[in-house]
Amino acid sequence: MIYMDHAATTPVRPEVMEAMLPFFTERFGNASSLYTLAQQSRMALDEARESVARVLGSRPSEVVFTSGGSESDNAAIKGAASALVRTGNHVITTSIEHHAVLHTCTHLEDSGFEVTYLPVDGDGMVDPDELVDAITEKTVLVSVMLANNEIGTIEPVEEMARRVKDIARESRRTIVFHTDAVQAAGFLDINVKTLGVDMLSLSAHKFHGPKGVGVLYVRRGTPFSPQQLGGAQERQRRAGTENTPGIVGTAVALSIADREREEASAHCIRLRDRLIEGIRERIPDVRLNGHPTQRLPNNVNFSFEGVEGEPVLLGLDFAGVAASSGSACTSGSLEPSHVLLALGLPADLAHGSLRLTLGRDNTEEEVEHVLRVLPDLVGRLRAMPSLSHATR
Amino acid sequence: MIYMDHAATTPVRPEVMEAMLPFFTERFGNASSLYTLAQQSRMALDEARESVARVLGSRPSEVVFTSGGSESDNAAIKGAASALVRTGNHVITTSIEHHAVLHTCTHLEDSGFEVTYLPVDGDGMVDPDELVDAITEKTVLVSVMLANNEIGTIEPVEEMARRVKDIARESRRTIVFHTDAVQAAGFLDINVKTLGVDMLSLSAHKFHGPKGVGVLYVRRGTPFSPQQLGGAQERQRRAGTENTPGIVGTAVALSIADREREEASAHCIRLRDRLIEGIRERIPDVRLNGHPTQRLPNNVNFSFEGVEGEPVLLGLDFAGVAASSGSACTSGSLEPSHVLLALGLPADLAHGSLRLTLGRDNTEEEVEHVLRVLPDLVGRLRAMPSLSHATR
Repeated sequence: MIYMDHAATTPVRPEVMEAMLPFFTERFGNASSLYTLAQQSRMALDEARESVARVLGSRPSEVVFTSGGSESDNAAIKGAASALVRTGNHVITTSIEHHAVLHTCTHLEDSGFEVTYLPVDGDGMVDPDELVDAITEKTVLVSVMLANNEIGTIEPVEEMARRVKDIARESRRTIVFHTDAVQAAGFLDINVKTLGVDMLSLSAHKFHGPKGVGVLYVRRGTPFSPQQLGGAQERQRRAGTENTPGIVGTAVALSIADREREEASAHCIRLRDRLIEGIRERIPDVRLNGHPTQRLPNNVNFSFEGVEGEPVLLGLDFAGVAASSGSACTSGSLEPSHVLLALGLPADLAHGSLRLTLGRDNTEEEVEHVLRVLPDLVGRLRAMPSLSHATR
Repeated sequence: MIYMDHAATTPVRPEVMEAMLPFFTERFGNASSLYTLAQQSRMALDEARESVARVLGSRPSEVVFTSGGSESDNAAIKGAASALVRTGNHVITTSIEHHAVLHTCTHLEDSGFEVTYLPVDGDGMVDPDELVDAITEKTVLVSVMLANNEIGTIEPVEEMARRVKDIARESRRTIVFHTDAVQAAGFLDINVKTLGVDMLSLSAHKFHGPKGVGVLYVRRGTPFSPQQLGGAQERQRRAGTENTPGIVGTAVALSIADREREEASAHCIRLRDRLIEGIRERIPDVRLNGHPTQRLPNNVNFSFEGVEGEPVLLGLDFAGVAASSGSACTSGSLEPSHVLLALGLPADLAHGSLRLTLGRDNTEEEVEHVLRVLPDLVGRLRAMPSLSHATR
């Protein structure tokens, strides 16, 4: 099998698995207990937190472990908005965020918040000027993703965060800046000082860590109301017995991803550009979705005129290639991608997209295999009226 | 090491670990994707859901996988309360619930709900008559735990749920009944039809499953607003990439716990009663906390007059025994246990409790070891004025 859906999930690395294993069975103590067995878990958690903080350039105390990217996004947005509701009720985000952000923002609208969904240009880029223009006296939170999960476009978060912070400072109030960096880890710099963000979300299974674990960075002093209530874990920011094996695995995976970031990026960029070039050469009437250069090293996203996404995926699956039409979280849905619609694509092109997302283990041979099977597949689908848009 | 803190957490069983392992590495596909690798994950999730449903006596579609008991409790209470807020704003719970329930209820009070915290008698028992008396026209939710995590008292949930449902039916309205069954799995019957509950929370790591995974049973038709928003996973009741290895492990662990329930209970009851009898015989001025008979098979909880809990735990740790003073989630806190205070214990006795919670791997030899070291330990602590209450 050729796996080219790394934006959906990744396998746990052997080194990560090895680090996790003892904490399931022998070193299983509850990190909140007092005895020696439990203190081993506590120490492992402390080390994991320090390790994640090193990658983020943060204090260990600013790292909150969660159950994944969706929880991190939900907690960041609800947590900051509810902590700041007395100073303002306006939130700014973009029209191409992951649904974990978008649906949380819609939920805020139901409880009295106003939300601005910034548009993007044809490449999926948010304009920092438009963000600044959208800020009102009531703005308390801005959430802009670091890189888009479907089309790979990298947003100018550093510039946006700096300008938002300047405005907040001048007007002597708090505007929290959150970024969903779930797709960025392992490929982009996620140093929170460089980025200048107050909150940042990560999901371990996107960088060869385990499923069911995420990170929420919360800068010291950021207004934040915890969303999962109960015990005093995570410095009272997230209740629940700590998932020690998962947290240990997350820290190891992030540390490796960070160490190998430049090498993995260079490798994926080579394969990505070969895929983009090859598809353009061999298949007529295609559209590359996302920014041509400001895009994730591992992301390829094409629309094929007159072809639905789903039969392409099934055809690729038969040919041993695992790929996606967009977000795994929305597959099965008959709605066209909200991201592609936001780029201005007509509904039929938005329906017919193929996302190939690479990883460090993909090879040139695998890329050539995809370039051999895909043109034929698209050609045959285009020749079958029942599977093309022609009959609609 | 002698591990007697099974209410805090348990080690993952070898059979559970074996079932989980392939889903970390080879069978790592995102269950929401379309290709073969992903469909393997989808099938494993479906099987896990069916397996959990068999133990609960529910439909598979009524099983929602979460990140743990705390999330299940939070989601149940916030989810039902917010779905029903237009029909009423009154919630009933008890004064001895886990903080995941209590703090969520306090949070509801901040947003306009009224909460009745039912008292308990000296054994920690809730009176069903008092529950019925507390119901008003505005009551929309009742949450009563199946068994208490500190003192092991088993609440008459079946009777309470039946009477609440009768009242709701007669007045033609909805009162949702939730039970936190986190401590009950593996020891008590958690069949939701027998219990008559609408929602039930479980935590996998309490029954030899992995940390970071929980179950929330939501009876079909129960008003429920999802709390974690994003993708359409778990039939839109809980967003986020499914933790396939964790969920598979949870199902295997619950299935084994259910199969071995009677045997494990009988074994633990023998050890429990020997511990209770032995402590009473050998240590003067002790108080058994919790109900003498209506208590979890694996729970022993004593207060020792004139002795703080913490030095007892440290002394036991030196003697190779892992135990707890109450809930792991509140250890490190200087507050006396809210559960013991609710029983009517004075603050000094509420400070000085020891909880020993047994598992199927504990032996009679281990019990005898505890009975050898504990009396001497308590005696020495009572003789040290600096560690006793005498000097205060």
